[in-house]
Amino acid sequence: MTSSTNFEAPTFADIEAAARRLEGKAVVTPLLESPLLNELVGGRLLIKAEPLQRTGSFKFRGAYNCISRLDDDAIKRGVVAFSSGNHAQGVAAAAHALGAPAAIIMPHDAPAIKVDNTRAWGAEVVRYDRYREDREVAARNLAEERGATLVPPFDHPLIIAGQGTVGLEIAEQAEAAGAELDAVLSPCGGGGLISGCALALAERAPGAAVYAVEPEGFDDTARSLAEGSRQESLEGAQSFCDALLAKTPGVLTFSINRKLLAGGLAVSDDEVAEAMTMALKYLKLVAEPGGATALAAALTGKYDCRGKTVAVIVSGGNVDPATFAQALGKATS
Amino acid sequence: MTSSTNFEAPTFADIEAAARRLEGKAVVTPLLESPLLNELVGGRLLIKAEPLQRTGSFKFRGAYNCISRLDDDAIKRGVVAFSSGNHAQGVAAAAHALGAPAAIIMPHDAPAIKVDNTRAWGAEVVRYDRYREDREVAARNLAEERGATLVPPFDHPLIIAGQGTVGLEIAEQAEAAGAELDAVLSPCGGGGLISGCALALAERAPGAAVYAVEPEGFDDTARSLAEGSRQESLEGAQSFCDALLAKTPGVLTFSINRKLLAGGLAVSDDEVAEAMTMALKYLKLVAEPGGATALAAALTGKYDCRGKTVAVIVSGGNVDPATFAQALGKATS
Repeated sequence: MTSSTNFEAPTFADIEAAARRLEGKAVVTPLLESPLLNELVGGRLLIKAEPLQRTGSFKFRGAYNCISRLDDDAIKRGVVAFSSGNHAQGVAAAAHALGAPAAIIMPHDAPAIKVDNTRAWGAEVVRYDRYREDREVAARNLAEERGATLVPPFDHPLIIAGQGTVGLEIAEQAEAAGAELDAVLSPCGGGGLISGCALALAERAPGAAVYAVEPEGFDDTARSLAEGSRQESLEGAQSFCDALLAKTPGVLTFSINRKLLAGGLAVSDDEVAEAMTMALKYLKLVAEPGGATALAAALTGKYDCRGKTVAVIVSGGNVDPATFAQALGKATS
Repeated sequence: MTSSTNFEAPTFADIEAAARRLEGKAVVTPLLESPLLNELVGGRLLIKAEPLQRTGSFKFRGAYNCISRLDDDAIKRGVVAFSSGNHAQGVAAAAHALGAPAAIIMPHDAPAIKVDNTRAWGAEVVRYDRYREDREVAARNLAEERGATLVPPFDHPLIIAGQGTVGLEIAEQAEAAGAELDAVLSPCGGGGLISGCALALAERAPGAAVYAVEPEGFDDTARSLAEGSRQESLEGAQSFCDALLAKTPGVLTFSINRKLLAGGLAVSDDEVAEAMTMALKYLKLVAEPGGATALAAALTGKYDCRGKTVAVIVSGGNVDPATFAQALGKATS
């Protein structure tokens, strides 16, 4: 799995297979609804609550789907990953469940909660300097040294298929709630989650327009969609959405997203802080900054929800208490 | 429904009937589990997440069960309730769903989020001074003036049966998770939630010991259980657990609780703040102070969870962002 870009995109059948592998391992997270929030936006919001997923984000799905396909020998040699934190925990927990040793390369400024929980799942954490080293190179070197398998964060068909189970569940749960989806909004970093979801939704809710929502300055997917080719995030951009700081869309994820996404939207850190506060007030859900971008797009009207039924993915909730408290203060001051 | 103490206790069949009435109206809230939290306490915790209930607490269940039994004429004349906030929202939302006008007597120092949301559900909010007026008398007078029905907060068989659906769901969900419950811990104010749950659990999980967890100074149920008769909370006691400041157990709820509960425990505000922080870190769930007492008992070892399977009810999540941020600061400082 070390070289991901030679692979073909997963199919809907791959997502169904991932769903079967994840049965009883991953949480079927609820699709939350708040009538008061609906009133505020003038539409119907269905919130896919991935903070309630094992490890606090959707990342467990792809990691488990990927690692579960390794043979016994590869499991013994272990896995390596690089991640700012959510993929780290997903890989650590999946490796733990499948009996594989795991080493995770994490940036020196990753949130403490993400580092602590990655260690708590039994993984070895190797720190690197986000501004001086290339984490992909560091991870590849480490994997080679150990004969371990690199579990890529997004640009791999098994990862995309695993994350796509989020979209599959949204389609099923929306149908059970008697809702016909006009749109689905998803946070977007490298594009693994949204590409998998778009594949699932194209099959199960083809009427839904799928939008990527990124932090301002890191809207490389939005600009890539507009340009028709992979663009980079803005030089020197900063955001507290630590989970969404990928520099550029994946090769494989973008090949899917350019065909299936309706477009991309960008939100500011202040708008994200307000969305985190609204998630507390109306959904009682802890959203991390990067997990709340899609909700911010719905609440600010950057995606106009009036008269529409919109599924909004809150993709993770791994936020340090102090950062969370600051976001609440920012939004209410 | 104005005089509640003349009623007999509900039966298990009443709880089953309530569950049927609530189908499709109330949320079947998930039973969350965090392997890392399990490791911390050395046992298995199953967290019943009532913050995810409609209106952000379990109170909608009892209110809907109660109001849905009124005849058309009574629905037209409307309902009245007194509440620090969660029962207020539950009654307001249930009345809204059933087409009844609602007026709610709320203390002047109720959390803003609870007052705002009660109004957002279309109810009229009437303020009173917690320290100068008797809210029960005020509510009865208002109900009489208007010919409206008083929906009591806990001491009524329809309220108890509605809240008991929490216990019914816990038993069913624990069984589905392959768990045999040793104990169930529940926050306790007037005792409506825990008495209903105890009735359901006596039938469906008879091996589970049920404990009431109250704020220090407001442990009137714990002391009443120890004394064998209804005791009052301590004079001058203070706590930020605004949902659990009932002065004394209900007549009907205590008649059930004295037979079915294993005992009562008390936790400090600091312990509750720490539990709210742990709920953020491990469950991604927003718990209000009064909603987190049972979790605090599990985390502090006041109930020793080692080697046991314990269901913990988090009963609500209606907390002002500023209060929540303060609790996080308190616990992490």
